[in-house]
Amino acid sequence: MAQTQACKDLAAARAKTTFPVIDLTRYIHGSDENIAKRRKIAALIANDPVFNKETRVGKSRVQDVNIGLAMSRRLYQLQEEHNLSKEDLLLCTDEQAKYWGPLAENHQIIGCYAQTELGHGSNLSQLETTATLNRDSDEWIIHSSTFTASKWWIGGLGAIATHALIQARLIIDGKDYGAHGFIVPIRSLKDHRPFPGVKVGDIGPKAYGGFSKIDNGFVRFDHHAIPRENMLMRFAKVTRDGQYVKPPHSKLSYGSMVLLRSQMVRGAALTLARAVTIATRYSTVRRQFNVPTSRRDTDNLNLETQVINYPMVQARLFPMVAQIYAILAAGKKMTSMYNGMLSELMQGDISSLAEVHAISSGLKSTCTTMAATGVEDCRKLMGGHGYSYFSGISHLWSSYVPSNTYEGDNFLLTQQSARYLLKQFKLAISEPEKVTPYSKFVINAVDQGAFQSERSSVQVATDWLKPEAQLAAFGHRAGRLVAELAVVVQEKDTVWSDFNIECWKLCHAHSQYVLARCSIEAVSQATAQGMSPSTVVVLKRLSDLFSLHTIQASLGDYLEDYYLSPKQCQTLRQQIKSLQESLADDVVGLVDAFDFSDYYLNSALGSSDGNAYQHLWDRAQREEINQTEVVDGYKEYIVPILTQHGTTKL
Amino acid sequence: MAQTQACKDLAAARAKTTFPVIDLTRYIHGSDENIAKRRKIAALIANDPVFNKETRVGKSRVQDVNIGLAMSRRLYQLQEEHNLSKEDLLLCTDEQAKYWGPLAENHQIIGCYAQTELGHGSNLSQLETTATLNRDSDEWIIHSSTFTASKWWIGGLGAIATHALIQARLIIDGKDYGAHGFIVPIRSLKDHRPFPGVKVGDIGPKAYGGFSKIDNGFVRFDHHAIPRENMLMRFAKVTRDGQYVKPPHSKLSYGSMVLLRSQMVRGAALTLARAVTIATRYSTVRRQFNVPTSRRDTDNLNLETQVINYPMVQARLFPMVAQIYAILAAGKKMTSMYNGMLSELMQGDISSLAEVHAISSGLKSTCTTMAATGVEDCRKLMGGHGYSYFSGISHLWSSYVPSNTYEGDNFLLTQQSARYLLKQFKLAISEPEKVTPYSKFVINAVDQGAFQSERSSVQVATDWLKPEAQLAAFGHRAGRLVAELAVVVQEKDTVWSDFNIECWKLCHAHSQYVLARCSIEAVSQATAQGMSPSTVVVLKRLSDLFSLHTIQASLGDYLEDYYLSPKQCQTLRQQIKSLQESLADDVVGLVDAFDFSDYYLNSALGSSDGNAYQHLWDRAQREEINQTEVVDGYKEYIVPILTQHGTTKL
Repeated sequence: MAQTQACKDLAAARAKTTFPVIDLTRYIHGSDENIAKRRKIAALIANDPVFNKETRVGKSRVQDVNIGLAMSRRLYQLQEEHNLSKEDLLLCTDEQAKYWGPLAENHQIIGCYAQTELGHGSNLSQLETTATLNRDSDEWIIHSSTFTASKWWIGGLGAIATHALIQARLIIDGKDYGAHGFIVPIRSLKDHRPFPGVKVGDIGPKAYGGFSKIDNGFVRFDHHAIPRENMLMRFAKVTRDGQYVKPPHSKLSYGSMVLLRSQMVRGAALTLARAVTIATRYSTVRRQFNVPTSRRDTDNLNLETQVINYPMVQARLFPMVAQIYAILAAGKKMTSMYNGMLSELMQGDISSLAEVHAISSGLKSTCTTMAATGVEDCRKLMGGHGYSYFSGISHLWSSYVPSNTYEGDNFLLTQQSARYLLKQFKLAISEPEKVTPYSKFVINAVDQGAFQSERSSVQVATDWLKPEAQLAAFGHRAGRLVAELAVVVQEKDTVWSDFNIECWKLCHAHSQYVLARCSIEAVSQATAQGMSPSTVVVLKRLSDLFSLHTIQASLGDYLEDYYLSPKQCQTLRQQIKSLQESLADDVVGLVDAFDFSDYYLNSALGSSDGNAYQHLWDRAQREEINQTEVVDGYKEYIVPILTQHGTTKL
Repeated sequence: MAQTQACKDLAAARAKTTFPVIDLTRYIHGSDENIAKRRKIAALIANDPVFNKETRVGKSRVQDVNIGLAMSRRLYQLQEEHNLSKEDLLLCTDEQAKYWGPLAENHQIIGCYAQTELGHGSNLSQLETTATLNRDSDEWIIHSSTFTASKWWIGGLGAIATHALIQARLIIDGKDYGAHGFIVPIRSLKDHRPFPGVKVGDIGPKAYGGFSKIDNGFVRFDHHAIPRENMLMRFAKVTRDGQYVKPPHSKLSYGSMVLLRSQMVRGAALTLARAVTIATRYSTVRRQFNVPTSRRDTDNLNLETQVINYPMVQARLFPMVAQIYAILAAGKKMTSMYNGMLSELMQGDISSLAEVHAISSGLKSTCTTMAATGVEDCRKLMGGHGYSYFSGISHLWSSYVPSNTYEGDNFLLTQQSARYLLKQFKLAISEPEKVTPYSKFVINAVDQGAFQSERSSVQVATDWLKPEAQLAAFGHRAGRLVAELAVVVQEKDTVWSDFNIECWKLCHAHSQYVLARCSIEAVSQATAQGMSPSTVVVLKRLSDLFSLHTIQASLGDYLEDYYLSPKQCQTLRQQIKSLQESLADDVVGLVDAFDFSDYYLNSALGSSDGNAYQHLWDRAQREEINQTEVVDGYKEYIVPILTQHGTTKL
């Protein structure tokens, strides 16, 4: 392939990198061993024809589901051949795990997790599916009272699953014990036909072509009987004589929710990283308009300007790079908090559960919103070609964006975190020493007299680079919001739901505080973790840009009570611009550090060689529709149009 | 179909409407005659099997293109049968129009418009395609010097077009006269094969499954000769002896750009309206959580709360309803401004061109961004089911979102409007009486002493309902931004591109001023236009909500120079909440007023009968994949997975 100007541009930008890229790759992926393992798996998949990304585009929905099945099959084979990973069965008793575990691991059954219903997503306590104990037969009768009780959206249920782990309201002698888990056989292992009393199918295509290869399904039960032992009994239990035994602690099941949300924080960073890699590389090789910019490629004045040199492009792109690194830092923190909490839980100590749950909910909401928005912003950053499927953004965004809704709707989740912070604020009044580590800022807000006269300490632009000035700003704003909420919730004739909006604002303010703090802590630990000084410099710039850009994006919140002055707003903008300029030589290195393979990116515009236009051209040439000179429908549709009024001699 | 609770909920909400819906339908669609015509065409399409929306989902790309061709053919037939519309040929000479017009109208040729190239979208002056005059043969030699000169993204070029109206740099005797239009035969009318020297094809799938039935194509020319007369010669001309005749005015060609952008303003409103109709109806029938809200359905306390009664849902949804009506008002204004300008242009008077061009560019950027963001916000508002293809949002958003990039990238466009406002600001210093009507606010900002001490006149919450208070706020903020820009552009060692961000901010501030003003003017004209008093009340609430919500969204801008006080921020929020509450009984009527048919909405969740869950269930049942009990790939893929480790007796 020819060494185009684009290739030269990306190579030149890469050569400017001021720090050893491997430092950050290690920081992101953990260790050289992990990096090697990731690369090995990536190569395995990339070289397997079943996973060829080019041949699986533009198929019909029915073909898509078949391709999905083929990929499942091949993935299971590869897992076994290379011993890649096993699944956990968290809520089973040991005995149940012994029975179901090997069946699932050996794929002698294929499971799926069925919680959401047609009529209920967010409100689990109102699930309509029931599991009613029949003492005589020692069975549960699984039943959907109406069609809205049908399980819906269940991944794998539409075509492949033989068993579903369903959530249903447990009922004994007419008494409702709320939602519990049950393993329910759905399709016969003999011929894959649904059992009598089980109506199962695919829910149809998803928005934006997302998850088109996944058979998200529905199931409706008509008095479907399963053995009593199929209830998951790790925590709650039901005995042979129909006695219900409560779980030791009502919130024990929060653990898996916290784990999932914590993982979604890191997931948000890596998703955004993928889009930003593409946008950064393409913006480096894309040239539009021959106009002067402050950062101009002076060797090539006859060429148009690389778009990455425009301040507007930097202002849109670089803060996303900073967000990725901030979210990564918070993700690491969440993992260690979760592990700490888990070992405490094993000892029966639930003291950190509430904080970890609140932070993970808040971060899930803030970070997955940031990532979904950011991915689409990357597409828009790439101009017209961003809208080509070959940009590599389409499949990424369309499968990522529902993350803003599943595992706790991003708007709803904020109510829980806000409620937690409100409790911390009340605690700060009576027992300030008991306020949890990431909520300490509420203490300042208790004495409203002093708090209302708090002002940012920033004098000159460079003061904005002080971590304490940044954290003070985040803490002040979140503190103000929680104190205000505490006042209004006590007003007469109000109900909690009146303050949805205030809660939502508070929760994001808190998440931003946590992100900034994790990011700052990561910088302070970087040297001790073996990073070279030049890397630490760049990491610090990213952390600063994250904080300052985030403050700027909600500037009104900081101005409303005079915490910031007009002058400070000006120096803030100035410092953001100067941070962006200082990062310009390193963005290509910063995205290279994510270590994404070209196969994984699947992007003509973001390929690692920079040859964007050539790849775009080549991909188009290989399209099925271009393999004939005249399109299939010519005779049937085009000829009648052209000849309707007779032919022209043209 | 059963009269479900959902149906009752929507009917009950509809019954609460406080104004005659037809008032606003007339306002939106112009006249009873227009409404009848729209409905007639809608019924025509809805009842035609070729346009059945249900059978054209989930097809392969190749099938999609064929479906697109079939729809084209049928559409042409319907146009002729019902004499629906004709196309204009704006840039042709009368003679050319006489030659090409009937051919195109009778579809004896099929045209497409080819401007964008693989290497150039935004920067038209650098298009690489050339049209070089060969005096001897009296022909243009159309040529793509490199593959990046290929025309790319051209709708209709991939499969159907026989001719392309291309933009190419006109070259005579080595002299480059810049981009001009040429009619270029692409495919033979005999057998549809591309001519020698023409490489043509489809550019491949678009992001998010958008425009999958459109054959966006590419073409690369290798010294392809066309007659000299194929140049569009309405303005510029080239004579038989190779003499280039300049157009009478260099900006005459702006006219069609202005027209297109103006139409996109109205298009933004109608697109957002479609999504908001769906989200409003579904939020009315969707119930989640049995918790008290201030606005509770007290007759049905045993049912969960309709989500539209949550303040968070109102805060997300109702401002979009207000945006639609504001954009509609601005769209009407743009149409009348364009028509005024056109008749002036006919007289050779170009005095209003600059303002109309600046406003149309700014509004195109602001309104299409608002609409694209809003459509996706509507989807998120609908929780999990929003992500089903059957929500009706997917196909709408994925085909709308590129509007933020085409016809002038929404970020780039802001530079032009800002430059215009800067000129107005300079004019305000020397000749304030010459400042154009929609820029008058710049005059206040000239005397910086007085301007900096300007404060909003709002005292109590209801003062925010005064149009003059709203416009003063919008004007003050836009005035401050233009005055600040005027200062920094004069600083030493700076270039225009350093101020991308400032321009972008200013342009949107101006567009918001224009939108608010058009919206306010529409209210003041409503009574005279025959609307009933109850309708005017609602229209006024919408106008207020638009202004106040828009101010709140950029609150920092109004606080930074103390124009607003902390107290005013509080009353602003209070007034917004109270406006939202006052609109709650009318939102269903407000979306009914758009008069969209169920066929057009193509949404299970937003259907006019409110029976969302039933429609969702029914659509899934009719899916092709659900017509067999066991999926196609069972033997090939599922059996090998299940039997890899022997079968279980389960």
